[in-house]
Amino acid sequence: MNTIVIGLSGGMDSSTLLGSLLGKGNSVHCCIFKYGSKHNYHEIRAASEIIEYYNLNGYSDKIHRHDFNLSSILGSLDSALIGDDRDVPEGHFEDEVMKQTVVPGRNLLFASTMASVAENIGADKVALGVHAGDHFIYPDCRPEFIRSLNTTIYLSTDGQVGVTAPWTKKTKADILNVGYNLDPPVPYYLTRTCYKSQANSCGQCGACVERLEAFKKTNHSDPILYE
Amino acid sequence: MNTIVIGLSGGMDSSTLLGSLLGKGNSVHCCIFKYGSKHNYHEIRAASEIIEYYNLNGYSDKIHRHDFNLSSILGSLDSALIGDDRDVPEGHFEDEVMKQTVVPGRNLLFASTMASVAENIGADKVALGVHAGDHFIYPDCRPEFIRSLNTTIYLSTDGQVGVTAPWTKKTKADILNVGYNLDPPVPYYLTRTCYKSQANSCGQCGACVERLEAFKKTNHSDPILYE
Repeated sequence: MNTIVIGLSGGMDSSTLLGSLLGKGNSVHCCIFKYGSKHNYHEIRAASEIIEYYNLNGYSDKIHRHDFNLSSILGSLDSALIGDDRDVPEGHFEDEVMKQTVVPGRNLLFASTMASVAENIGADKVALGVHAGDHFIYPDCRPEFIRSLNTTIYLSTDGQVGVTAPWTKKTKADILNVGYNLDPPVPYYLTRTCYKSQANSCGQCGACVERLEAFKKTNHSDPILYE
Repeated sequence: MNTIVIGLSGGMDSSTLLGSLLGKGNSVHCCIFKYGSKHNYHEIRAASEIIEYYNLNGYSDKIHRHDFNLSSILGSLDSALIGDDRDVPEGHFEDEVMKQTVVPGRNLLFASTMASVAENIGADKVALGVHAGDHFIYPDCRPEFIRSLNTTIYLSTDGQVGVTAPWTKKTKADILNVGYNLDPPVPYYLTRTCYKSQANSCGQCGACVERLEAFKKTNHSDPILYE
């Protein structure tokens, strides 16, 4: 029963983290980031609906929301996820081309913001939903980064706040299995994973491909709409 | 001759860092942060004038400016430097009461932002102007924090960007001696150190007291106006 600050993107991993932490009796402060990515509008809508789901399922006194706009920092960076001048690459998450989707410093900035919130409200943990499938492309999701981030945030807050990232060694299929076994189950029908900007998910980008593989592996059918 | 990203607050330490890095032939990208502190308006005005000074002294092709607004994150935190409901404490920088001036996570957020800029423009260093006098009050200025931050940013950027903080073991008097020996000298008449909101510096807050002591120790007279 702790107070924990998480980054809630509205995707499968952070939504499962939210459900799991609430299920263990924690008070959870969700940070939602506007930062100028192509799919950001859909992420924020999904995160809002997921919070509403838990509010309606008995957690309204345990769930808190904080909105931040980091567009002035991240909204003009060189990344295929940002702006309109480059397309989101299609293919498998472990293809070299997917490195175009790196947003420089995104997780460090998100975690730093969450650390400020945590220190200010007296929370003792910042929790991140990074998972094993992120490691190949994203340096700011790898275990060695998370360990160093933990030390940095611990020192920055004079020992008050640490970092936890329970999915670091889990695949997206493992995470799905966790979420479907929670009561209530994680509302995957509300989550958004696709990197592209259209209303329905594309099914072709690295994020969609990895999501669909996870549902297939766990013998669940993905409840969201695809193009 | 590198490209280096610095945080420029318009105070003595970061202004001397700017002058020193320009003097060594580096290209310097200055990040200026709006974040809602009482003295923020004066800091930004000072930083602007210091950049203009170096522009007029032959460095216009070596100096770049980036403005960021972090008020949505830092502008409502619990700190005597933020908002109107608490006064800035007066006294010596090493008094316990000065810990009220901690802004939770400020340096981590500033450095994270600078790391995103550095990664995006291909710079290899983020430089911070923290100095030895900061260590007692501010955990996010201590050498162990800077070392851990260096590792975290290095890992976050896949080995591209590191952190340097050349004043970590220097006092404010040491820094003044560096700045007065540069050609052109650092324009201390343009710098702003005071934590309070009025136009002229107060001379009573921890920041002013430490500044005045440094000028006294180095036998320079402080060229700025005090109340």
